[in-house]
Amino acid sequence: MKFARHGRPGAEKPIVCGADGQWRELAPVVRDVTADLLSRSEAELGLESLPVVTHLERFGPPLAQVGKIVCIGLNYRDHAQETGATPPTEPIVFLKAPDTVVGPDDEVLIPGGSQRTDWEVELAVVIGSRARYLDGPESALAHVAGYTISNDVSEREFQLERGGQWDKGKNCETFNPLGPWILTADEVPDPQRLGLRLRVNGRLCQDGTTADMIFDVAHLVWYLSQFMVLNPGDVINTGTPAGVALGSPELPYLRPGDVVELEIDGLGRQRQTFAAAH
Amino acid sequence: MKFARHGRPGAEKPIVCGADGQWRELAPVVRDVTADLLSRSEAELGLESLPVVTHLERFGPPLAQVGKIVCIGLNYRDHAQETGATPPTEPIVFLKAPDTVVGPDDEVLIPGGSQRTDWEVELAVVIGSRARYLDGPESALAHVAGYTISNDVSEREFQLERGGQWDKGKNCETFNPLGPWILTADEVPDPQRLGLRLRVNGRLCQDGTTADMIFDVAHLVWYLSQFMVLNPGDVINTGTPAGVALGSPELPYLRPGDVVELEIDGLGRQRQTFAAAH
Repeated sequence: MKFARHGRPGAEKPIVCGADGQWRELAPVVRDVTADLLSRSEAELGLESLPVVTHLERFGPPLAQVGKIVCIGLNYRDHAQETGATPPTEPIVFLKAPDTVVGPDDEVLIPGGSQRTDWEVELAVVIGSRARYLDGPESALAHVAGYTISNDVSEREFQLERGGQWDKGKNCETFNPLGPWILTADEVPDPQRLGLRLRVNGRLCQDGTTADMIFDVAHLVWYLSQFMVLNPGDVINTGTPAGVALGSPELPYLRPGDVVELEIDGLGRQRQTFAAAH
Repeated sequence: MKFARHGRPGAEKPIVCGADGQWRELAPVVRDVTADLLSRSEAELGLESLPVVTHLERFGPPLAQVGKIVCIGLNYRDHAQETGATPPTEPIVFLKAPDTVVGPDDEVLIPGGSQRTDWEVELAVVIGSRARYLDGPESALAHVAGYTISNDVSEREFQLERGGQWDKGKNCETFNPLGPWILTADEVPDPQRLGLRLRVNGRLCQDGTTADMIFDVAHLVWYLSQFMVLNPGDVINTGTPAGVALGSPELPYLRPGDVVELEIDGLGRQRQTFAAAH
């Protein structure tokens, strides 16, 4: 199933799309899309009897309450290469705060003083059940509720040249478009076989596959569970393939008016127009 | 006023202490301690008519819903020195997820495989109103609702030697004891004149003053507002003075059974026993 939320910012309504390909209103059975909802079956939801959506509005973030957002750096060989970094021997971890999350097609703001706002298409993993000191990667995917798209928007000067830790360039307002929908894990037989692409003003900049991850989703969930507790509703941004502005001298950083489009096989598309924050 | 929450984990009840020095139940007027509550006056709360607490239970985290926790690294000259770092020219920023927060006297878990779990007493700033691209430090303190104590517990190997960003050693389970109470900003005329101390098994390890911060609270709030939006309920851990294990060869890292006590002038005390996570 696909779970999503549509409507005005802050007033989104939960919707679901099952085997029949119809978006249906979830309001008769739940208040919103939360992590525990994602494990229910079509039968449990009484999907067939839910009203069909007659008019799809703006998509909001597909989860009502995003927990922490754990981001993995340099997790594709070609991206590590393009940024001049050595491929990491264990996952690089940083955080985005959930208040950076916006809908998949919402405006994204280029921060004041920014010269180097960059894009990153990423497979986002939504945690469905608590993961704490897992025994190994083989039990890890059982804790994944589903998948969606993240744009891990990054300000490279803030991230790399303003003293210290990457978080400073990763947590600007609107810097994490998420969605349009969460595809439940049962419909993603292999998360390491998904193509992901990103275009800026129509130009294909990133064209990768999750097969090229250095650390796959199962490894990441297991690994992270050794350092922190992953809770239902947490999101993992699993890293980005090559083709960001930081690694491509021929690609300019983002300017107001630029349009960024992202897609991942089976997970839909995002489309953001960038604007100045002030 | 002081705002706090007492009771069993997950079932804490809101309490308040005003000019008469009595802890009183807030349940008759509010559901819990939230950021907007902190700006109300004693008269608005009808403080005098609230029931006096007859038995203080365990203190929980003093805020019901902590937003993001923005942490400042190396913000005391003596601490930068002891760790061998050059004092930063602008604030070093990293994040802790709110699910690391526990009560001020709760057990803290030493992560599996940890050899270097360390302490950091810090002045924690609670944001009361949205701060976004503030004009300057002089308007910044108006966005502060109050102050409390954080223990910014850190695993130094995870933080510094396991590939990349500090967040990996800062987000372990139970790694942010917070409280016992929030003292409202009107009762802290100068946040740069607070003594802060930390003892391990009775031995005084940290004995500093917020006067020694490299970047003061007003500067930090203003600075952060240029890189991210600070929202009501967000917390800033403002850095720690000298005397952590990382900087003191004579001080051993924490082991199960160790007792850590923290205090900041006017903000009360914390006392944690450390235990093995598994």
